[in-house]
Amino acid sequence: MKIRRSERLIDLTQYLLNHPHELISLTFFAKRFSSAKSSISEDIAIIKKTFKERGLGVVETLPGAAGGVVFTPAISESVAKQMIADLSEKLSQQDRLLPGGYVYLSDLLGQPELLRQVGQIIASKYLGKKIDAVMTVATKGVPIAQAVAYYLNVPFVIVRRDSKITEGATVSVNYVSGSSERIEKMELSKRSLKSGSRVLVVDDFMKGGGTVNGMKSMIEEFDCELVGITVFAESNFKGRRQVEDYTSLLYVENVDTATKTISVVPGNIFE
Amino acid sequence: MKIRRSERLIDLTQYLLNHPHELISLTFFAKRFSSAKSSISEDIAIIKKTFKERGLGVVETLPGAAGGVVFTPAISESVAKQMIADLSEKLSQQDRLLPGGYVYLSDLLGQPELLRQVGQIIASKYLGKKIDAVMTVATKGVPIAQAVAYYLNVPFVIVRRDSKITEGATVSVNYVSGSSERIEKMELSKRSLKSGSRVLVVDDFMKGGGTVNGMKSMIEEFDCELVGITVFAESNFKGRRQVEDYTSLLYVENVDTATKTISVVPGNIFE
Repeated sequence: MKIRRSERLIDLTQYLLNHPHELISLTFFAKRFSSAKSSISEDIAIIKKTFKERGLGVVETLPGAAGGVVFTPAISESVAKQMIADLSEKLSQQDRLLPGGYVYLSDLLGQPELLRQVGQIIASKYLGKKIDAVMTVATKGVPIAQAVAYYLNVPFVIVRRDSKITEGATVSVNYVSGSSERIEKMELSKRSLKSGSRVLVVDDFMKGGGTVNGMKSMIEEFDCELVGITVFAESNFKGRRQVEDYTSLLYVENVDTATKTISVVPGNIFE
Repeated sequence: MKIRRSERLIDLTQYLLNHPHELISLTFFAKRFSSAKSSISEDIAIIKKTFKERGLGVVETLPGAAGGVVFTPAISESVAKQMIADLSEKLSQQDRLLPGGYVYLSDLLGQPELLRQVGQIIASKYLGKKIDAVMTVATKGVPIAQAVAYYLNVPFVIVRRDSKITEGATVSVNYVSGSSERIEKMELSKRSLKSGSRVLVVDDFMKGGGTVNGMKSMIEEFDCELVGITVFAESNFKGRRQVEDYTSLLYVENVDTATKTISVVPGNIFE
């Protein structure tokens, strides 16, 4: 075994992982390693096979002068299902129960390991769809948006409930807070999103869907297109939800403050 | 070249990259690949050498029954300096100038590529220091905290200026907002941080240092220990800063609204 090839495989692997969804020319790698393009092609074929066998994502090679290699992170449905089953269990822990029947999530949404999983699951859900930006609302949606954006390699934008001087000119929309029927306002910096962008909406938690619905209006105001909506967890909701076309990783079926039990099951993401 | 080894190298590389700062036993990999531990040791030696030569981080092997391999992401000072030089240039673009002399940063703090760089630079700065958690303040500090937490593989916690019902019991501290001399309040969920933790504070922007100082008080209230403070950008500040022991990636030297110029230079992180 030539050391050269092993080094190339290691560096190619890390490079692809750190540059998902990016078309990289073989010339770039040939220069990087002072190797022939034919050798690089062979390396990439090995990586492609290994990634496929191990469920690490899709490595594609595009021929021609404008061609190259693209890595698309994706996990298999079976791996994602196992992750979600583990998450359901974690969320069902009774010490997560807060006064008012709320479920404590903030610790989970600060764990890199969990966020990597959530990012992979959501990115895999939209495999093959063109997405230009991920949108969420401050504050708790941010880690989810960032996790997904890392795997899609597109920017994420943060809609805020309060205006900040550091955002410059903003566009604001009103929305009906689903749970409480109040009219609220959310704002997004004008320069943060280009018109015509295809936008994926993510959030940490959905009850009535009012916030998500607000983001849908925001997308319209920016002349953008909604690709999909995915939330980390949705709760059982008695009324009529304002949003219907969404997916969730987790479904908080029941919260009983009397018996101190929380029942969380997988959401509708694989239905 | 045996295909087996190349597959192992590819999978070992991705596994280490996705599990930074985690001690992984050779037995784990031996089982994963149905290979002898001696082969795994050889693979890891190759990865170690390649990572070192290419400045991708440190791969260490610890001997003994409780031993294994640990990957610590780190970039070299020269690479970090180049990244910071590029950032300085980006921030100096005159269209970033906002009314009141503020600098627009939100788009940059939503770019995965840039956040990966910032995460690597800050994590490398604290190489060898024990860190249990990263702390920041909502909202704009969150992407920085998450980026750093990904490379350190520790949780990040978000201090908030407003209390939320979904945080459960909180600890609150008052702090003097440096720029405006007002007394403000910040809160952190009690269960988000264990006492005795060693905490790294990060934020997007620092002017008078009031917010960062508030986080220092918060760390004391939780009986935790401050490891260090690093901000993405600091601005030229006429008065006396409330915090002195901090590092910054970027220094906004001068903002001139009349001539519409922003001058940004590297911060004190490598001084």
